[in-house]
Amino acid sequence: MKTRIEKDCLGEMEVPDNVYYGIQTMRVMGVSGLLGEKVIKYPYLHQCLFQMKKASALANKDVGALEAEKADAIAWACDQALTGRYDDQFPLDMYQGGGYTCVNMNVNEVIGNLANEYLTGHKGQDAIHPNTHVNMGQSTNDVVTSAEHLCIYPALDKLAPELDKLAEAFAQKALEFADVIKVGRTCLQDAVPLTLGQEFGGYAEFCRRQAANIRSLREECFSLIVGGTAVGTGLGAAPGYQEAFYKHLSAQLGEDVKSATDLFDGMQNDDFCVKVSAAVKQAACGISKIAKDIRLMSSGPRAGLGEISIPSLSPGSSIMPGKINPILPELVSQVAQQTCGNDVVISMAFEQGELEISVWAPTLYKNLFESFDLLTKVIPLFIDKCVSGITANREKCAQEARETIALATVVAATLGYPEGVRVAKYAQQHNLAVADAVLKMGVMTKEEADSLLDPALLVNPERMAEAIAQWKAEKRHA
Amino acid sequence: MKTRIEKDCLGEMEVPDNVYYGIQTMRVMGVSGLLGEKVIKYPYLHQCLFQMKKASALANKDVGALEAEKADAIAWACDQALTGRYDDQFPLDMYQGGGYTCVNMNVNEVIGNLANEYLTGHKGQDAIHPNTHVNMGQSTNDVVTSAEHLCIYPALDKLAPELDKLAEAFAQKALEFADVIKVGRTCLQDAVPLTLGQEFGGYAEFCRRQAANIRSLREECFSLIVGGTAVGTGLGAAPGYQEAFYKHLSAQLGEDVKSATDLFDGMQNDDFCVKVSAAVKQAACGISKIAKDIRLMSSGPRAGLGEISIPSLSPGSSIMPGKINPILPELVSQVAQQTCGNDVVISMAFEQGELEISVWAPTLYKNLFESFDLLTKVIPLFIDKCVSGITANREKCAQEARETIALATVVAATLGYPEGVRVAKYAQQHNLAVADAVLKMGVMTKEEADSLLDPALLVNPERMAEAIAQWKAEKRHA
Amino acid sequence: MKTRIEKDCLGEMEVPDNVYYGIQTMRVMGVSGLLGEKVIKYPYLHQCLFQMKKASALANKDVGALEAEKADAIAWACDQALTGRYDDQFPLDMYQGGGYTCVNMNVNEVIGNLANEYLTGHKGQDAIHPNTHVNMGQSTNDVVTSAEHLCIYPALDKLAPELDKLAEAFAQKALEFADVIKVGRTCLQDAVPLTLGQEFGGYAEFCRRQAANIRSLREECFSLIVGGTAVGTGLGAAPGYQEAFYKHLSAQLGEDVKSATDLFDGMQNDDFCVKVSAAVKQAACGISKIAKDIRLMSSGPRAGLGEISIPSLSPGSSIMPGKINPILPELVSQVAQQTCGNDVVISMAFEQGELEISVWAPTLYKNLFESFDLLTKVIPLFIDKCVSGITANREKCAQEARETIALATVVAATLGYPEGVRVAKYAQQHNLAVADAVLKMGVMTKEEADSLLDPALLVNPERMAEAIAQWKAEKRHA
Amino acid sequence: MKTRIEKDCLGEMEVPDNVYYGIQTMRVMGVSGLLGEKVIKYPYLHQCLFQMKKASALANKDVGALEAEKADAIAWACDQALTGRYDDQFPLDMYQGGGYTCVNMNVNEVIGNLANEYLTGHKGQDAIHPNTHVNMGQSTNDVVTSAEHLCIYPALDKLAPELDKLAEAFAQKALEFADVIKVGRTCLQDAVPLTLGQEFGGYAEFCRRQAANIRSLREECFSLIVGGTAVGTGLGAAPGYQEAFYKHLSAQLGEDVKSATDLFDGMQNDDFCVKVSAAVKQAACGISKIAKDIRLMSSGPRAGLGEISIPSLSPGSSIMPGKINPILPELVSQVAQQTCGNDVVISMAFEQGELEISVWAPTLYKNLFESFDLLTKVIPLFIDKCVSGITANREKCAQEARETIALATVVAATLGYPEGVRVAKYAQQHNLAVADAVLKMGVMTKEEADSLLDPALLVNPERMAEAIAQWKAEKRHA
Repeated sequence: MKTRIEKDCLGEMEVPDNVYYGIQTMRVMGVSGLLGEKVIKYPYLHQCLFQMKKASALANKDVGALEAEKADAIAWACDQALTGRYDDQFPLDMYQGGGYTCVNMNVNEVIGNLANEYLTGHKGQDAIHPNTHVNMGQSTNDVVTSAEHLCIYPALDKLAPELDKLAEAFAQKALEFADVIKVGRTCLQDAVPLTLGQEFGGYAEFCRRQAANIRSLREECFSLIVGGTAVGTGLGAAPGYQEAFYKHLSAQLGEDVKSATDLFDGMQNDDFCVKVSAAVKQAACGISKIAKDIRLMSSGPRAGLGEISIPSLSPGSSIMPGKINPILPELVSQVAQQTCGNDVVISMAFEQGELEISVWAPTLYKNLFESFDLLTKVIPLFIDKCVSGITANREKCAQEARETIALATVVAATLGYPEGVRVAKYAQQHNLAVADAVLKMGVMTKEEADSLLDPALLVNPERMAEAIAQWKAEKRHA
Repeated sequence: MKTRIEKDCLGEMEVPDNVYYGIQTMRVMGVSGLLGEKVIKYPYLHQCLFQMKKASALANKDVGALEAEKADAIAWACDQALTGRYDDQFPLDMYQGGGYTCVNMNVNEVIGNLANEYLTGHKGQDAIHPNTHVNMGQSTNDVVTSAEHLCIYPALDKLAPELDKLAEAFAQKALEFADVIKVGRTCLQDAVPLTLGQEFGGYAEFCRRQAANIRSLREECFSLIVGGTAVGTGLGAAPGYQEAFYKHLSAQLGEDVKSATDLFDGMQNDDFCVKVSAAVKQAACGISKIAKDIRLMSSGPRAGLGEISIPSLSPGSSIMPGKINPILPELVSQVAQQTCGNDVVISMAFEQGELEISVWAPTLYKNLFESFDLLTKVIPLFIDKCVSGITANREKCAQEARETIALATVVAATLGYPEGVRVAKYAQQHNLAVADAVLKMGVMTKEEADSLLDPALLVNPERMAEAIAQWKAEKRHA
Repeated sequence: MKTRIEKDCLGEMEVPDNVYYGIQTMRVMGVSGLLGEKVIKYPYLHQCLFQMKKASALANKDVGALEAEKADAIAWACDQALTGRYDDQFPLDMYQGGGYTCVNMNVNEVIGNLANEYLTGHKGQDAIHPNTHVNMGQSTNDVVTSAEHLCIYPALDKLAPELDKLAEAFAQKALEFADVIKVGRTCLQDAVPLTLGQEFGGYAEFCRRQAANIRSLREECFSLIVGGTAVGTGLGAAPGYQEAFYKHLSAQLGEDVKSATDLFDGMQNDDFCVKVSAAVKQAACGISKIAKDIRLMSSGPRAGLGEISIPSLSPGSSIMPGKINPILPELVSQVAQQTCGNDVVISMAFEQGELEISVWAPTLYKNLFESFDLLTKVIPLFIDKCVSGITANREKCAQEARETIALATVVAATLGYPEGVRVAKYAQQHNLAVADAVLKMGVMTKEEADSLLDPALLVNPERMAEAIAQWKAEKRHA
Repeated sequence: MKTRIEKDCLGEMEVPDNVYYGIQTMRVMGVSGLLGEKVIKYPYLHQCLFQMKKASALANKDVGALEAEKADAIAWACDQALTGRYDDQFPLDMYQGGGYTCVNMNVNEVIGNLANEYLTGHKGQDAIHPNTHVNMGQSTNDVVTSAEHLCIYPALDKLAPELDKLAEAFAQKALEFADVIKVGRTCLQDAVPLTLGQEFGGYAEFCRRQAANIRSLREECFSLIVGGTAVGTGLGAAPGYQEAFYKHLSAQLGEDVKSATDLFDGMQNDDFCVKVSAAVKQAACGISKIAKDIRLMSSGPRAGLGEISIPSLSPGSSIMPGKINPILPELVSQVAQQTCGNDVVISMAFEQGELEISVWAPTLYKNLFESFDLLTKVIPLFIDKCVSGITANREKCAQEARETIALATVVAATLGYPEGVRVAKYAQQHNLAVADAVLKMGVMTKEEADSLLDPALLVNPERMAEAIAQWKAEKRHA
């Protein structure tokens, strides 16, 4: 195997010449492999680093710090990397000490060797040095911290439309179930009726709000600390570098990327990750709540609530024939549980930042993007394999709505709470529907009961309020 | 002891006549006392409930559902309760099952008895019934859920100014320490210099951003679900009630209070608590990070970093005379740890909501307001007893800044990274400052070293960039 | 108000002479009050400190380090404090920086002043000095760390019997429900039958195992690091002190208290708190799981599972008459959620220990004992107000057991899985019980169906296995 | 591509004939792939399932439920699978709904097809059916729950020896550093001296205790619920099956595997996972605390504590030449943070178990084994690349020990606390070592100071106590 010699501050090493990474990457590979997943499993960080390295080279060219030929070679190399063709040249495990210095250097080395090869026909550090040229005017501290910020926006951009689609799926069901009257439940006890459509309409609105919440985080992704270099002072960056960098990066991404107000603050604090994680967790937990509702409403088929049915995807038991499990709702809840744990890790890591920089970039990345990835992937499965196939068991729902003792609420709302209590007790003791109890007790006339205890009325706030108001008016006149 | 008889749907009970709460509160007192802290320890929820009960009575009067005399008596009673004079009539423990139904009823009973007494001269349910009149058109589900939303704004309003003051305290120190040059540290290893003022400026900016983040949550507090009653359908509320309610409540609070877009969603989901908790946690964790920095920088007095000194508040040891502990920074970190745990509880509780309502209002309240309270209270202590008394140990800082090997970065930025490595190694091996090493090695002239390795220059990004650019220009010309 | 002058290493202060605490306590009171709960809310730590201070004085007497008269006065003062009569002299908030140095000094001062008064008739530091005499040979680091270990055993001793009682309550219900056959559920879907008694028997066994787990932690509580003083070296303790201390403390407590193997390890690490917290959390989460089962099985009364009924404790709604909530099961789940959050705080605090000592004793204490307290208090409520009053709805259970399609498992177990699938599908499509389906399909004779699909048989593993085996034998012979 | 037809209760499907898994696995593959990691990434669960399927087949043969030929074919197939040769036949993602029913079926199908092929020369369900024969007398509920228990022991067996080795590595350093006297630190403030060896001895003992704690969990792994089948009643298992199963499994593993006391409890509760997770977390957090100590003690090289040096593994900065980062200590802390988050997920999942079974097996597996894997893998890296290469900076340590003001403790221990305070203040104000201050102040003679303030004495508790006792004796006589 052909090799080349590379050097760094710890010495030199023979590097196989068929790889584009170099000595510093290889050093870290020796203490890597902990998680068994590569950083590039989630491609966001590397994609952003390639864009930033390109913008940086062009900026250094603009301000006269880097010769045009070298800068263009680096920019060309970045474009190559952006195609994904060299993804196997980024072998580092997602778990790293030293705050992803190695990830920055892996990128510097691959870009450097690609550029060197472009200029000279061979890999090596002779024409383009990974530190001197590719990393010119940069430090891991400003570059990786910025990239971790920036690379959140594509993840947001993937998640938000999935939330929209889920909202839309629920909204369609809300329409479909608009006339399915069922019993409401609070504290898991029978309450007054509502429609299945109203429940699903609530689900749709929740998803819509989460999509908006996720999108509201987008702008902050474009506030970076590039140019702060090692500790925020900018030592090592050329005059004009910052401005030129943002001009190039903004043009490349078609987004308005700019500098944070205070580079020291931006370098010290990764609180944006905490905020984003909380937003992902919040969406996941709420969708899990919905998934559990669906699981509960579809429980049975005979001895459960049985209000809805969900599609059958696979046999639900190795021993009980015909049993089907709510595997998608359960998958959604698992994702939510995971986002809660990941959020703890992210909070802990943020809290343990220290002086000029937090070293826990790897922890933040692993946990934040695992959460993003799980939630973004589980939603389309949830829609396609579960939500869109939900059907209502209308008869079961209707029966529940008729039978709930909570209809005594109407009695309370018209004749006072104590009278409502009396009717509720009577209905319970005699195992009657409230509509029947009020007749037996002589509390309402058949006509009154028919008009006031009609389930279709009870789920329509405006019509109900009018009916009660009219009844009260009549009473007063009587 | 004089007693009165009160009734509810489970039967009747003798109630001591000197208390304003009634039968339903007493039932719950029998299964209460778990946490040993009352709900009203944090007064926010009750204050909001009093305001809402008042607005509700006036709204019911407006729409003709409640006689003016009764409505006005209830409004009067609410004003009485708002003075805090009856706070001892709310004896319930913060930990409750049943989602604070009991808290709503406790308020209904106290307001009811106050109003009844106002109208009749005695307590009781004869003129004003807690359910029929005080709770008219309401359910715990819409009222308590709304109150838990609404009552967040006074907590935000207390926390944000404390964050401002902390920002201001740091900003003052940033000014004071603007010329204290010290070594930066990343991964706890010596890095390039910066000023202590720059570090503290970063702290100030962090606090400013958190204040803004906290304030950004304020608007959502005023989006309520009143009028949804038990399950979101509004069953039991009079026509026009909602509109009238928001008109009154907005006037009472001087805020624009309005209805949520979808009452079913609003009743199903407490995600706003998750969002607020995350914001409080984020602020707490970042301030804890700063507190730990201060603790680390003030470590010593002789065998630590010793860059700053903090005020002595109490003897720091029962056995070691003269030892002083950083008790305020430690208190801040404890608060942050607590907010992380509380946030987990809040997330778990949210995720476990179910169908029409989450029953975990007590859990959310306890954990969210403990976090608010701790952070809001610890900040002024931190400012007064620690931050404002910090002094810089200028000599120690200056010495570190001179000695750090990371000054080789300047060599790398001017003569290339490999040359920087060579100087760094030489300085380390010969135990020299970089400024001395470059001379001994003949890498720079005395003049160059003086101008390029001047610590005062190194912490000023613009002057530094210019100096390097000028040097490069000269080199090129030479 | 009469005052006295006290001194410490920061200066002197006028102290009101009616209080037994002194200057150091007063200094800390000025930065205290954060949580609004006193350390002594949970009395365990102080009780242990009083015992340890007594043992310490007697030990110092034994080895000749302390005059008998002073030692006896201190021992007398500790006995006074142990009565609880002076609990109001410990005003410090549970939240403190500096790792409870102040709590140790508060105890030293109160014991010191009591002893001084005993010897001289007045409070003060003249005869007995809080540091020199009460704290002789001790440091907060060894004493408070040890006390936090030691004081766990009374908490264990309170919790374990409650778990026993809960196990007993479930065991009684298991007997009572031994013949209530119902449907089992996995993934919330109908499965094969079991008895309600078997479910409750499982609950009983879970509680028994947790009680054993809690008791298994007891021994480690008595392994202390007294004598290590400030950093583990024992600097300042007299020769023979350790041995004498353990002799006295063991005698006082009637327990075998001894020294940890390595005092440095013992001082550095509070992992025992993490272990205890995990055990409390584990018990709480499992009981919460049971509470949720009870909540689910008692859901209804008409539109839920309705398999059991639980006692009514208070009206469950301010608007819906007759509604009752499962407030005890919900209280139990709240406690479990809290223990999960508290466990996070404890883990974070442990992980952030540092060098010779962890400074997070206050965090550990607050969270661990809140968890203990909540769980210990909620169990008797759960037993008395819920579990012991549970009744079975036998008819509903029986019907479910007959109807479950999972009875096709018997067909699978006898005629093979594919035949089981065929029967399950047929039963579902024709809305038949499996017992009816097998007849209609001609898969079993009436006799076979009666003997193999008898629910009473299905819940008895041995009889069932025999019946199937016998059937198979007959088949083979046929 | 050649295919075969397979059937299950949802219908039939063409399956590529080159794979050993079947229709049920393929159904789930359609909704799988969420995490992007296969269950078999951690091989423990599958290995246990293979063993259990083998024991099960042999048990069914013993009790006459399964023909010898079929049983032996299944046992043969299990042995094949145990070689790892068929690991690629288990394609399912670690994240699954339905509680790993699919994992059980995947195993049943692969074993079934291997056995079918063995008997008939072709894959298929004709000779060996995955449900009827391979899964005979089993349910996912008893089998997977048991396997998740059982498969913890090999993970414990891997982790414990790593903890031993780490203890040993620290113990060796403790010996090496036995005479390196340094300053102790509490609350990060200078305290009395101890040796670096004493600190490392504490680390060793911590690791030893954790190894013991990990090993203490081993026995419980062998308590299973096999034979409980779907809900604990054992419906579908042949008479004598349980006993025969445990006999075979015990023989296969060389361990004493037995039945849990109560199968219903065992099926309902996964608390053992919570306990194991807590133990792994506890070990990880404590080792992280040590790693942070090492990181802190090695901070510098010039402006930090600089008491020790750790090996250089890779350049620590892309911009600052010569900077080296403590990447191993940081990696260790990342692992600890992750175990804390994973533990939250595990606790949440356990708490959300329901009725007969917890469906969160996938969540538990992912999080528990990620924690195991990370900790087990990071320890040897930590030893080899960091701990074993630590060197002491003796001079720096010695200087600190001499200079610490906490030496005034000796004055307090001999002449009383107030005198100690006076000396400490004087030393601080005049910037003197305590040994010099006592002379200047005339508090001790040179002889006394030399004997009592000798650092070598101060770190040796017995010699120190004797010296003080002797001094006191002399004083008394004087």
